Amino acid sequence: MQIFDIPTLKSLLKPSLNWLLVFLPVAVVLRVWPQLGNETALFICSCFAVVPLAGWMGRATEELAEHLGHGIGGLLNATFGNAAELIIALTALSKGLTGVVKASITGSIIGNVLLVMGGSILAGGLKFREQRFNKTAARASTTTLTLAALALAIPTIFHVSAAGPSGGWTQATEQKLSLAIAVVLFVTYACVLGFELITHKQLYASDSQDGEGRKEASGWSVSKSLLVLTVATSLVALMSEFLVGAVEAARSALGLTEVFVGVIVIAVIGNAAEHSTAVMMAMKNKMGLSLGIAVGSSLQIALFVAPVLVFFSYLFGRPMDLEFTLPEVVAVIVAVHLIFQISGDGETNWLEGVQLLSLYLILGILFFYLPERAHTG
Amino acid sequence: MQIFDIPTLKSLLKPSLNWLLVFLPVAVVLRVWPQLGNETALFICSCFAVVPLAGWMGRATEELAEHLGHGIGGLLNATFGNAAELIIALTALSKGLTGVVKASITGSIIGNVLLVMGGSILAGGLKFREQRFNKTAARASTTTLTLAALALAIPTIFHVSAAGPSGGWTQATEQKLSLAIAVVLFVTYACVLGFELITHKQLYASDSQDGEGRKEASGWSVSKSLLVLTVATSLVALMSEFLVGAVEAARSALGLTEVFVGVIVIAVIGNAAEHSTAVMMAMKNKMGLSLGIAVGSSLQIALFVAPVLVFFSYLFGRPMDLEFTLPEVVAVIVAVHLIFQISGDGETNWLEGVQLLSLYLILGILFFYLPERAHTG
Amino acid sequence: MQIFDIPTLKSLLKPSLNWLLVFLPVAVVLRVWPQLGNETALFICSCFAVVPLAGWMGRATEELAEHLGHGIGGLLNATFGNAAELIIALTALSKGLTGVVKASITGSIIGNVLLVMGGSILAGGLKFREQRFNKTAARASTTTLTLAALALAIPTIFHVSAAGPSGGWTQATEQKLSLAIAVVLFVTYACVLGFELITHKQLYASDSQDGEGRKEASGWSVSKSLLVLTVATSLVALMSEFLVGAVEAARSALGLTEVFVGVIVIAVIGNAAEHSTAVMMAMKNKMGLSLGIAVGSSLQIALFVAPVLVFFSYLFGRPMDLEFTLPEVVAVIVAVHLIFQISGDGETNWLEGVQLLSLYLILGILFFYLPERAHTG
Repeated sequence: MQIFDIPTLKSLLKPSLNWLLVFLPVAVVLRVWPQLGNETALFICSCFAVVPLAGWMGRATEELAEHLGHGIGGLLNATFGNAAELIIALTALSKGLTGVVKASITGSIIGNVLLVMGGSILAGGLKFREQRFNKTAARASTTTLTLAALALAIPTIFHVSAAGPSGGWTQATEQKLSLAIAVVLFVTYACVLGFELITHKQLYASDSQDGEGRKEASGWSVSKSLLVLTVATSLVALMSEFLVGAVEAARSALGLTEVFVGVIVIAVIGNAAEHSTAVMMAMKNKMGLSLGIAVGSSLQIALFVAPVLVFFSYLFGRPMDLEFTLPEVVAVIVAVHLIFQISGDGETNWLEGVQLLSLYLILGILFFYLPERAHTG
Repeated sequence: MQIFDIPTLKSLLKPSLNWLLVFLPVAVVLRVWPQLGNETALFICSCFAVVPLAGWMGRATEELAEHLGHGIGGLLNATFGNAAELIIALTALSKGLTGVVKASITGSIIGNVLLVMGGSILAGGLKFREQRFNKTAARASTTTLTLAALALAIPTIFHVSAAGPSGGWTQATEQKLSLAIAVVLFVTYACVLGFELITHKQLYASDSQDGEGRKEASGWSVSKSLLVLTVATSLVALMSEFLVGAVEAARSALGLTEVFVGVIVIAVIGNAAEHSTAVMMAMKNKMGLSLGIAVGSSLQIALFVAPVLVFFSYLFGRPMDLEFTLPEVVAVIVAVHLIFQISGDGETNWLEGVQLLSLYLILGILFFYLPERAHTG
Repeated sequence: MQIFDIPTLKSLLKPSLNWLLVFLPVAVVLRVWPQLGNETALFICSCFAVVPLAGWMGRATEELAEHLGHGIGGLLNATFGNAAELIIALTALSKGLTGVVKASITGSIIGNVLLVMGGSILAGGLKFREQRFNKTAARASTTTLTLAALALAIPTIFHVSAAGPSGGWTQATEQKLSLAIAVVLFVTYACVLGFELITHKQLYASDSQDGEGRKEASGWSVSKSLLVLTVATSLVALMSEFLVGAVEAARSALGLTEVFVGVIVIAVIGNAAEHSTAVMMAMKNKMGLSLGIAVGSSLQIALFVAPVLVFFSYLFGRPMDLEFTLPEVVAVIVAVHLIFQISGDGETNWLEGVQLLSLYLILGILFFYLPERAHTG
């Protein structure tokens, strides 16, 4: 297929991601002849195969957005930018794995904010003494992220407060509360899009100008973009089936908890493509764009993906609430607080990358040691 | 009476508030002939009647302050600015409704910071692309507010830590702790006044210059100011009697919890006048003044009204502590954090108003669903 | 001894600290003839005697650092700046007093950030209307401090989450978690030193230039520095023996809890020397240096002393975890948050000093009223 053959700039810059496509046929083989491998191998192979596919989905979405103009194109990017995560989560949700789904929401936020952003700031900071970006745009994003982090903490606070013999906590109230919060977050996301794409698009314009490196030279046609999008999405859906089908067996084989798999493993896979792009942008001293990718992706997860998952859970007849475990809530809040503190002055240096990565490591250690049933309060 | 007859600029600008005076006689009628209505109607009517009266009290205080010069006048404003809330709270305290009183303290802070400020920033932001104000003055206020929010969380942390079989928590220690914190907050308030009115008054001077819109054309005489103040205060006291007397019956009739009534209902009523002034200032692009009203009112509640209520509770022989429910503590801290984050850069836009209002909505939802006895821990 | 005889500038500026050396022989006498006094008197005398000795240790370290050049000298300062605290803590650790040791870690952080910094800002602010300092350097320090505060909260969050019948919490996991976090903090400290001493030393250079007041006129020789360092360190070790030996008896005689003694008493003693230097610098309008001393000392405690104590605890065969009581965790986080908020704009005024001191007072009240066994959860 022409798309994969021609060595584009992107494929040369990050060869590792496309090479991972080799795991796609391996995963199919493992699934068709189960006697060949085991569930753990299938899980790992489909995990690896999702990474480049998510990258192709993102690429195709951006190329398509290019043709649709700033407004609609921006909306497309804003809604389908995390489509791979959404597909995996919906597949898991349809199988009733709400624990993993919820953990992957918090994990995506933490991963983008600490791992992707920390890695980008460190990589950029090793090349440049100081990197600057638009302070107001960064503040708008991190403040919305703060709001989202606080909103996602509310159901847990509700549970802790209303639990106990005289508390009067019920599952039904928890779900109503979560649904109402999901609606508020969804509406807030619409406002954020209005701000970024309509009323204050100039704040982000300087980034787009910077952003020429992002759209790259190629310039795909609409039909090519649609074809790649369709193929990559179908393959991501297939891999999600494999991945979700094998996750429980793989978990117990590897001795990992549900929260650890959701927060660390699934989140890292789903965001690998963003990670590689954000780091590249940082190394080109386009810090505003790098921050936009990482924080924007977190925002999308919190304000769009999470509410959509709640809405879909009602369609599947298995209502999902937004109550997270206490460590997840704490992790999201502290991660968002640190990125606010670091990005608030409009400049970064390598030490700030180290600080974000240190926190990611510390939270990873916490989730690693956390026993299986260690839920709220 | 001349005061209400002449259509001043103010009355033309916010006709809705003065029109609410119609509820004053209705409330009196409902109280005198109980067979006519019910407690819920009385509660609602006296609630509405308080709104314009509080506005007149505030107006009269400001006019009086004008005659007394900057120093003493500022002190007057600073101590009587929330007199309506104080009267309602003292009435409730004398009847032993400490739950409602405490909830109205946290509700006033949250309401001013999120609802009043969010509404002002949104209203102003829809007219002006960006609104600027003195960063240093804003930081001084929000930092003091942060301190107050943390201080008000301490008794709850004490309870959570010291509770349990081996904890050694006692009601008496809780009260001593609360009293000591109230004293520290009161002394801090004196320092804040010294900063604002004496040592750093220049920071606030640019606002006052702006603030000509606030004092308006009228220029009441001292005797007129005193007369209005006396009449309005007496009527607020009367309405408070009605309101507090009917609150329990109205609560159960409407199916609302004590915390919801205190945090949302009472707080909205007591701050309606500030709300309307702050929004007007924002729409005139006097953001510094708008912020000063909303954040200043929160500060007054936390550093002056709350300690005074604790002191008076000893006079009434029903010592009130400063232990709040966990959701209240969380709500105050997150509200204060968001306003700090938003005001820290000395400029606002409409999205920041939406963010504050979203958080208010989310907290309102939390308090609405929270069952009655869902207290700390 | 010549060192103590010649009235240097320093000794004239802070005579009070050196006068405390009189408690050194008193403590020895009390220890040798136990019938003369009691344990409480011994505890108090050795406490007072440590204060000037810690000052001499710090002075000698700085003089030595002067001879070793910027890089190695900075490293020396960074590792031995809190040697007195480290000696006291190691002595207490070897006797199994882990409660006091852990409380002294959090107490040192809180004390430096709130008491030392608050006192300095207030003292400086009473002389100067506004004091400015390098914003970027301050942000780098306070962000690292935020990271450290969050890291130190993780084991407590782990305990709260994993406790309970189905939680699966074990002491061994807690220790492994703490050890892993200690390693991450230690590595982060190495990065911070690399930032401050190598890659971004210019940020701190303006402070050093300012800092001529710090190195003072004297210019000790290497041998004199080493002699003073050796003598002062030995005497601190001796006083630590006395102090730690008497602490339990003194505690019960004075009716103070373990946490109060660790958080307030030990922390104040260990940081008295920093306090006096930081206040002096602030009064000379060298706010950057003052902030550097107080925040730098906190950083050293959190990122160097705490991990080293964990490592040594394994040598002593009594593994110490990093789980603190809930009030300690809250106190550290709120203290660090307030200093971040105050120092974020690169300028201070007297009110900000009052705010920090108010919070210290409020936390002191909390720890004073907290009953003995009021630990996490």
